[in-house]
Amino acid sequence: MDLINISDTIIKIETAALEEWNKGNPSGYLDILASDITYFDPFTKKRLDGFDKMKDLYEGLRGKICADGYEMIDPVVQAIGAAVAVLTYNLNSSAKGVTYKWNCTVVYRLEKEDQWRIIHNHWSFVEPT
Amino acid sequence: MDLINISDTIIKIETAALEEWNKGNPSGYLDILASDITYFDPFTKKRLDGFDKMKDLYEGLRGKICADGYEMIDPVVQAIGAAVAVLTYNLNSSAKGVTYKWNCTVVYRLEKEDQWRIIHNHWSFVEPT
Repeated sequence: MDLINISDTIIKIETAALEEWNKGNPSGYLDILASDITYFDPFTKKRLDGFDKMKDLYEGLRGKICADGYEMIDPVVQAIGAAVAVLTYNLNSSAKGVTYKWNCTVVYRLEKEDQWRIIHNHWSFVEPT
Repeated sequence: MDLINISDTIIKIETAALEEWNKGNPSGYLDILASDITYFDPFTKKRLDGFDKMKDLYEGLRGKICADGYEMIDPVVQAIGAAVAVLTYNLNSSAKGVTYKWNCTVVYRLEKEDQWRIIHNHWSFVEPT
C-alpha cells in the first residue's frame, strides 16, 4: 500500500470511529484498539496502559457524549514502512453551542488480517481553559 | 537491536535532550528532530509541521526555561519493527517551587547512520489549570 493509500485508509478509519464516538458509541474505537495501547487525555491522572483499562474508561462514557458537529482540521499521516502510521489533527468539536478545540495524536499499527489498530492515542486541549 | 535495547536507547536519548532543555538549551532536542516532525503543545494554536517551525519555536525559548528538577514517570517504549519507537511518559517538572504535570508522547524513527530522530512530539497538561 503506498503512502496516499495508507493516508486515505487511516483517515477513513479514524473518521468512522470518531463519528460513532460523537453519537455516544465508543465501540468504533474499542473495535480498533490494540491490546498494548497507551493513552493520554486531559482528565486521566496518569497514562492508561492496555485494552482493559480503555474498555473501562470508554464503557463508562457510553451514551454520555453527544457532539452536534465536528471539524477534523488538516489531518496528516506520517507512514513509516508499510505497518506504522502516525495520524495527527486538530479537532473542533461542538456540543450545545460550545466548541472544544483538541490536539489529537493516533498511532496505528498494521496487524494480522490487514487490520489497522491504535497502539497509542493522545488527546489534549489546544489551550487550557 | 532487540526491544530492551531499543527501549534503553530511546529513554537515554530523551533523557539527555530533556536535561539540556531543563537548563534552557533546546539544542538537545533540535539535534534529533526529523525534517518532517509534527508537534503539539498546549500553547500552539495549531499543530506545527516541519523542522523550521520547531527551530523558530525552540530558539525563541532558548535561555528562558529553567527547571530545578524533574521526574520521568514510568516511561514505556512501544517498538514496531526495528525502526519505530513510541515513547510515552508522565513528567513532573519543578520550577521555583511549582510542579507542572505533563503527558508526553514522542515518536522516534531510525534514520540513516543509525540515528533515532523524533517525527512527532505531543506535550499536554495532565489536567487543565
